[in-house]
Amino acid sequence: MDDAGKKVVIVGAVAVGPKVACRVKRLVPDARVIMVDQDEYISYGGCGIPYYVSGDVSDVKELMSTSFHMVRSPEFFRDVKDVEVRTRTKAIGINRNNKELLVEDLKKGDTYNIPYDYLVLATGATPRKIPIAGSDLPDVLTVTNLHDAIRVKEKISRGEVETAVVIGGGPIGCEMAEALADLWGIETHIIEIFPTLLPTFLEPPMGKIVQKHLEENGVKVYTGETVKEIVKTNGRMKVVTDKKTIDADLVLMSVGVKPRGELAREAGLMVSPNGGIIVNKRLQTSDPYIYAGGDCIEVTNVVTGKLMHAPLGSLANRQGRVIGTNIAGGFATFDGVVGSFAVKVFELGVATTGITYDKARSEGFDPVRAYVVQADRAHFYPTQELMYMALIVDRKTRRILGAQAIGKNGDATVGRINAIAALLQTKATLDMLSNLEVAYTPPFASAMDIVNAAANTAENIIEGLNKTVDPDAFAEIFLDKNSSVKVLDVRSPQNAQPFVEKFGDRWINIPQEQLKYRMDEVSHLENLMIFCNSGLRSYEALRQLEHYKGIKARNIQGGAAMIKMARLIDVDK
Amino acid sequence: MDDAGKKVVIVGAVAVGPKVACRVKRLVPDARVIMVDQDEYISYGGCGIPYYVSGDVSDVKELMSTSFHMVRSPEFFRDVKDVEVRTRTKAIGINRNNKELLVEDLKKGDTYNIPYDYLVLATGATPRKIPIAGSDLPDVLTVTNLHDAIRVKEKISRGEVETAVVIGGGPIGCEMAEALADLWGIETHIIEIFPTLLPTFLEPPMGKIVQKHLEENGVKVYTGETVKEIVKTNGRMKVVTDKKTIDADLVLMSVGVKPRGELAREAGLMVSPNGGIIVNKRLQTSDPYIYAGGDCIEVTNVVTGKLMHAPLGSLANRQGRVIGTNIAGGFATFDGVVGSFAVKVFELGVATTGITYDKARSEGFDPVRAYVVQADRAHFYPTQELMYMALIVDRKTRRILGAQAIGKNGDATVGRINAIAALLQTKATLDMLSNLEVAYTPPFASAMDIVNAAANTAENIIEGLNKTVDPDAFAEIFLDKNSSVKVLDVRSPQNAQPFVEKFGDRWINIPQEQLKYRMDEVSHLENLMIFCNSGLRSYEALRQLEHYKGIKARNIQGGAAMIKMARLIDVDK
Repeated sequence: MDDAGKKVVIVGAVAVGPKVACRVKRLVPDARVIMVDQDEYISYGGCGIPYYVSGDVSDVKELMSTSFHMVRSPEFFRDVKDVEVRTRTKAIGINRNNKELLVEDLKKGDTYNIPYDYLVLATGATPRKIPIAGSDLPDVLTVTNLHDAIRVKEKISRGEVETAVVIGGGPIGCEMAEALADLWGIETHIIEIFPTLLPTFLEPPMGKIVQKHLEENGVKVYTGETVKEIVKTNGRMKVVTDKKTIDADLVLMSVGVKPRGELAREAGLMVSPNGGIIVNKRLQTSDPYIYAGGDCIEVTNVVTGKLMHAPLGSLANRQGRVIGTNIAGGFATFDGVVGSFAVKVFELGVATTGITYDKARSEGFDPVRAYVVQADRAHFYPTQELMYMALIVDRKTRRILGAQAIGKNGDATVGRINAIAALLQTKATLDMLSNLEVAYTPPFASAMDIVNAAANTAENIIEGLNKTVDPDAFAEIFLDKNSSVKVLDVRSPQNAQPFVEKFGDRWINIPQEQLKYRMDEVSHLENLMIFCNSGLRSYEALRQLEHYKGIKARNIQGGAAMIKMARLIDVDK
Repeated sequence: MDDAGKKVVIVGAVAVGPKVACRVKRLVPDARVIMVDQDEYISYGGCGIPYYVSGDVSDVKELMSTSFHMVRSPEFFRDVKDVEVRTRTKAIGINRNNKELLVEDLKKGDTYNIPYDYLVLATGATPRKIPIAGSDLPDVLTVTNLHDAIRVKEKISRGEVETAVVIGGGPIGCEMAEALADLWGIETHIIEIFPTLLPTFLEPPMGKIVQKHLEENGVKVYTGETVKEIVKTNGRMKVVTDKKTIDADLVLMSVGVKPRGELAREAGLMVSPNGGIIVNKRLQTSDPYIYAGGDCIEVTNVVTGKLMHAPLGSLANRQGRVIGTNIAGGFATFDGVVGSFAVKVFELGVATTGITYDKARSEGFDPVRAYVVQADRAHFYPTQELMYMALIVDRKTRRILGAQAIGKNGDATVGRINAIAALLQTKATLDMLSNLEVAYTPPFASAMDIVNAAANTAENIIEGLNKTVDPDAFAEIFLDKNSSVKVLDVRSPQNAQPFVEKFGDRWINIPQEQLKYRMDEVSHLENLMIFCNSGLRSYEALRQLEHYKGIKARNIQGGAAMIKMARLIDVDK
């Protein structure tokens, strides 16, 4: 800030707003900072709502408290931060010429102007509702704010919810389904319009892993299904899809959010067709005295180079600091996002960064997709669990475009994706990941860690050494009645047995250690696909068969581990 | 490889060797690959030795097995990998003109030549022994190979070890101490010559956290102490230091390793004064037909730009693949290391990357050091634990030089360091880390994650906003009898009470929410240091006092959390 005592007015007091306020005050203690919010609840961790509903977080106050257990109330901001907060105060207009914010006091009903030197728009986002009949029924909620969250939890606590339907199998949908089913024992259904869960974040077989895990934990999941209407009869709701009708006491819609850019647009600021406020890297809007951050802005996706809406509390916090620094006269930029994201689904940690294979194709890349299954620490260490990873790489430039991981050790899973995300921010190529230095010790990593293995697998695919078929594609092709595909299973006879029994002469078992001596048994076969536990031994077998017998086989990525975890082929049935 | 059928001879069959062999065979299946090793044990996970000794890994075979439980024996390499392994075969000379390796068959006692097209030196490292009397006693072991490991475990199993002394408080020393003390209940002592444990990896207060944790788990730790001799009388050993004498049934020396470069040096290859083989980025020695990798080579430290010896199984594996690719006629490079490293010490995960503050100073940087203590996930999420982090940054260039973390959720701790390590590989500056996108969801991260907080703290120090005193320096200055330092504790009266009681008027408590109104109570004080739980609230207090009262105070980094975790001040005594 050019001189002390300048007035900073902030619209919105949940995530970005408080961060801007505190940063400005630490840099320029005698700045005057006023935060207005139309709500009475401020400065809360919205991403914690599913854990409040589930009961993991027992009191809603915990979502509004500091780590040292002080509630971030207006009094807290006054005494501790020297920031003035006006709740139940709605911003209704900006007079940019006079540099004044017009607000309405929702308690008294009157309106007045607040002059500003700098204005910050942190107006957040509005949950979307799909435009169907019944979406405005009182028990159809979006649970994106504390009011809804408290209402849902009270309703559940009163025993009024036996059956719940979650519309939308994205992250919030999965989290809410867990919250309802796990701790409250509510019969919970998820309806997702795309063929697999978390469709914008996960490759299809990865989404199927999540689906299977939800189902094992009692959640009913319907994918590729469209909700047509919600009807209420005799006090109970029915959710009608294109395939079935489900009774429900509670319907949660988690089908995304839309940036709240109306205030900005009405003030003549640049706003995207989607409603997101356009900012530069300093997070200034088209008016240099007005900044914006959080769920109401568009940000640049570092991978695609395009604008996107990325409504995440973590980004909001980082943006808040950048805005605070810039308003205080410093220099800071927010250069864009790679789209990192994590969700806990019962016992699984799910984390992703960058873009999916389909997104990469639609953005003009020529992507390859590697699937790797490997222990998340030394395979001889007792607490090891398998981790499932997908890596998306551009064939031409070898640039890493995205990565996804699922594992039972959630911290280990998220940690791997964070390391790859750091590389994505620098537009790194495969070679960087191939030699990425994961801190090694048997309790926490493998000597050749899964992130390195994923890079090496992708490289082998690009180099044409590893000719692959994806696990879901394999299952579909193989299970087709007219399929001529035969499988060479190079695992031990014991492991292969259930498959051989089920599929007869279409499933040939030659353990890897015998293959060298028995290649002739398969050398006449066409349309051969090779199978092992994870795709490693089958890759070696592929190389040998191709070299010595000229066989053009394909390696089934992810092998038995992926087939089983995503339930792509069920040999027990 | 220019043409198929070429002969690749590899000296050493533990980590690099097998990796080279397998990679070459996958790329050029009809290459002839011969691996020789003087030992009978091959292809084992040496880093798993402490877990074999402890009993976490029950059978030594597990360290030699694949993830699908096949023992990597010479027969395994023959049948599965099509690689010939000659154990008990010692390389004794290289005839570079004839391209022949001279070996001795240790079983038969004869010598013979093996011709090669490409030779790979994976000769490993030799454990150091400190040159004192008694270091060659039979029960003074280094436990860097399976023979020693098996011997130690047998000795323990027979009940012959009541007391053990570990010389050297580095990673292996800490791991071995845990193995002995935890599962076997052996009275275990660690002697470290430097003032704190893990001195080349951790800042002093971080090392003290590890020491306190070891001591809480029953290990006796002596730092700043030098071993003078080991004497054996009446069948029992005594370890004599400059301060005491300790009885011991077993002495483990873990004072580092030295690269085995003799074979290379005698063949006229370039070798460092330290004995490490010099290689280029393709991992070729000064003879282009001879490659080298693993514990016997020198690598470039990306942070310092200098050669270093980095004997880690994880690097060996990555280097093995690079060598394999290059020998097969491909192009791959190993560009250097950032020095990532992890160790589990009882319930703590410890991870580091890059260089320490002292190392940075000695390398000509102008480092600043930030200490941050924060929950490893959302502070309202039930499984949260505090994580302790140190970040080293160059003041002039803002380049990140190193990071260290300690936490109870080991995977979470290591995951954070891996993300920073990925940035280090790109020579990133603070700004990259400040906005680093850690995948956020309350069960796995904070909205403003500890890695971002560490970057922001370091930036505030560089900008002169946060004037700090390090936790260990504070404790030393404050506890000095002649000290005039007074502490302003801005925590709640309840938290401050034990300190106020112990230190009287040298410890002033004004809770942060009252400070705004009570600044005059401290405005006359000189030599004021400000204290809170972690260093965050005290930073805000510092900014206010400086701005409004012109007080030149200092913020105590890491606050009460660090003081307690490293036991720098003990208020209970």
